[in-house]
Order: sequence, then C-alpha cells, then structure tokens
Amino acid sequence: MANLVRLYVDHPLGAGQPIPLAREQAHYLFGVMRLSVGAEVLLFNGRDGEWRVTVAEAGKRSGVLEPQERTAPQDGPPDLWLLFAPVKKARTDFIVEKAVELGARRIQPVQTEFTNSERVRRDRLQAHAVEAAEQCGATFVPEVGELEKLPRLLDQWNDTRRLMFCDEGLAGAAADLGDFLDSGSGSGGAEAGPWAILIGPEGGFSDAERQRLHGMEAARAVSLGPRILRADTAAVAALTLWQATRGDWR
Amino acid sequence: MANLVRLYVDHPLGAGQPIPLAREQAHYLFGVMRLSVGAEVLLFNGRDGEWRVTVAEAGKRSGVLEPQERTAPQDGPPDLWLLFAPVKKARTDFIVEKAVELGARRIQPVQTEFTNSERVRRDRLQAHAVEAAEQCGATFVPEVGELEKLPRLLDQWNDTRRLMFCDEGLAGAAADLGDFLDSGSGSGGAEAGPWAILIGPEGGFSDAERQRLHGMEAARAVSLGPRILRADTAAVAALTLWQATRGDWR
Repeated sequence: MANLVRLYVDHPLGAGQPIPLAREQAHYLFGVMRLSVGAEVLLFNGRDGEWRVTVAEAGKRSGVLEPQERTAPQDGPPDLWLLFAPVKKARTDFIVEKAVELGARRIQPVQTEFTNSERVRRDRLQAHAVEAAEQCGATFVPEVGELEKLPRLLDQWNDTRRLMFCDEGLAGAAADLGDFLDSGSGSGGAEAGPWAILIGPEGGFSDAERQRLHGMEAARAVSLGPRILRADTAAVAALTLWQATRGDWR
Repeated sequence: MANLVRLYVDHPLGAGQPIPLAREQAHYLFGVMRLSVGAEVLLFNGRDGEWRVTVAEAGKRSGVLEPQERTAPQDGPPDLWLLFAPVKKARTDFIVEKAVELGARRIQPVQTEFTNSERVRRDRLQAHAVEAAEQCGATFVPEVGELEKLPRLLDQWNDTRRLMFCDEGLAGAAADLGDFLDSGSGSGGAEAGPWAILIGPEGGFSDAERQRLHGMEAARAVSLGPRILRADTAAVAALTLWQATRGDWR
C-alpha cells in the first residue's frame, strides 16, 4: 500500500460514489504516473478519511475512479493553530510541511516588526500543505490563512484560545518550560481547549511586541532551551512539546 | 553583533594569542566577505567559547586575527548521541543541522535493513555541522561518525548509555510517551546519564531489528504520536522531547 499513488481530491468519498477526474488529475494519473484501468490509488479529501479506489475509465483529459474501501478514518488534529513569521522560501515551506505532519488545524502566517518577507503566496503554501499531506499519509489538510499583521491579529484575539509564545529572548527563564510541561498532563487539565503557537522571525520579536504578548491573559511564554533555534526548528520543537503535553500524542 | 561573520577555526582561542589564517580562510574573509584590517569577526573552535577578534593583517593568501574579548562561554551539550539512518541528501543535511541546533554531542549515521543510502560522506556531513554551528551561534560542534551497521553498533552497545528508540510501528502504545515524559523530570532522576536517540529510516525498522531493540535493557521505545512522521521530523521531535525532560532545557 505504501507505494500506491496518494492524491487529495475535493470530491466526496464514499462507497458507490464514482469520482470524475479533472483534466489536471487525469493528466497526472494517466500521463505522468502511467496508470491504466484497474490500477489502485489512495484518495483523501480532508473530510471522509482515506479510500482505496480503482481506475474505472482512463482518458487523456478525463477519467473516473471507483471507491473500493475506506483504508483510514478521518483524522482531526486537536484545535491547534500555528502562527509563524515567514522566513526564506525553503524554510517557510518546511514549516508548513511540518505543521501538517505534526498535526496543526490551521497555519497562519503573521507579519511582525522584524519579518523580512512582506508577501506570502497563500495559494502556493496551501498547495504545499496538500502535497505534504499526500506524502505523509495524513487525511487532514490544515487551512493556510492570508498573511496578517501581528497587532491586528492580537487586537481580535479571543482569550479562550491560549497562546504559546516562544520567546528566544527569555534568558534564564528556563523554569517556564518545566511549568508548561507539568501543567499540561492530560487533556482534561486547566489548559485544555483551543491553543495557538506563535513563532517569531529570525530576528526575534521587538520589545514592543514582546511587552504586548507578555501582557496578554491568554499568552504563555515558553523558552526552548539555552541555544538559539532557527524559526523552523522552533516551530517543530513547539509543535512537539504541545502535542506531547496537551495534544493527541499521549 | 548578529551581523558579524562567524567562523569556526581549529586554532586555540585566548587573550593575546594571534590567529594565523589558512589560505582558504583568508580567501573567504578578505576575498569573499571583503573584510579589511580592523574589521571584527566572531570565532569559535569548539573548545574555548566564542571570541570577538579583529583583523590585524589581511593578505590574499594569508592573514592574522587578534582576539579582543570572549563573547560567549563554551557550550557543552548533554551527553546525547543522535543515531539516524541516512535519508535523501537534503533531509540528511537537515538532520545534521538540527542536531547541532538542538544540542547533540555526537551524530552517528547507521545503516539499517531498510536504509536506502549505502554510503555517507562523513567529511561532507562534518562540514555541514560546522556550518550549522557557525550560523546558529553554537560554540560546540558535534562529531559526525562514519556510517556503521546497526547490528554491529548494538553488539558493542554499553548498557550504561540508554537508548531512546522511536518506533513508528508502535500503534496503540501512546502511554509510552507519557511514561517517558513523566520519568524524566530533573536531571538527577533514575534515567540521568548518557543517552542516545535512534531514528529509523523512512521505511521503518525490520521486524528483526525491532525485536532486538525491544529486547535490549538500555532501550526504551517511545511513540511520537498517531501520525506518520518523516525521519527528519522524528529526529527534531525526539531531540526536543529528550532535551525538555532530560537535557538542559529546563
């Protein structure tokens, strides 16, 4: 099964519901991957789990797939958002890929004072999230939001969503990590419910941003050790710590 | 300071000890980076911390740097090894970079039954570790070992070094993660001392390998959540969990 082509489609997936292919999908399956009638493919749409389907009709510009059986249930990651300041293209792609693998429900690029890139192509990042899900076997694809300015995002913040805020400038505050770990055991704890992780840009947060974040009731500063981490490393580390203590890893 | 060139050298670093430059280093600093006499550079050698130095002589093929002050103490990460099965080049490089950032003391490529790449250029990976340290501000550079076969490595295993073994095949064993987290609080616990993390290849471990690992007294299987992680993600997640519970992050 591991070697079957795995494809995201927008169509509903269910027993007895044939799936018509768009031109681009038909080209990929029959032109690029050279599949023919009878071949097996895995499909998911982010709602109905994963299905094994077979090729029923294969044309140059069209085709039909027939569902055989559901091979995985629909995954719904915990209600966790990843907010991050875009960095260079390859590392931004990497952050999106890892958020899919580690199980975030929404990916939100944010523009901070020290963010270098002023524009983010949301559609490209969304396509990258789909590709990451296709490759890692996920059945859920997080939505990628449009780039938002941090102050605007915080103005509208709903305090029922807690905010894990990774502050590289937190020298000597290592205890915060222990506290974060200890207070998270079990999903029924005081800190259950919706969360977001906020990762700053390579240059860190500005003093004004840091002050504002520390003053928010929903925010919780967490230190990620004594070494300086790149933004992509910090994203993976924070997602890991959250999932291990408050998410669905334990 | 963040914008100063940061360079690894092999020479001892200390007050009053001028540093002669090799031809390649002189070319980099004066030819590529266009530095001239009086310019400041940050140096580290993995033993003497980080030093701010100034250019005292700048030639085409040689030069001399003069130490001014020590700007960071020597970091010594905990006694943690990262053992991993090499994957594709870009992701192998990534694993090495992240092991430097997250603080591993040794990086050991291992060949497992399902490892695709049969050869690893140790010198290239070592150079990549140096470059990662230069970029992320680390003063310590982990040694990269020669590729070793897993059975051979396990034959010689010293049981005083515990082995965190990330088993993707561990369905339904999520409790193991909670147990790993809970038993690690504080460095004086029963599980203090040297450790290694072992990350399998994309295809997972073979049944024979898995059986052998589960039978080792030093080994502890840990599950990294319900989703399938790529090898590079698993490496970062495991390093994070170890550092947060047994290392120097808390």
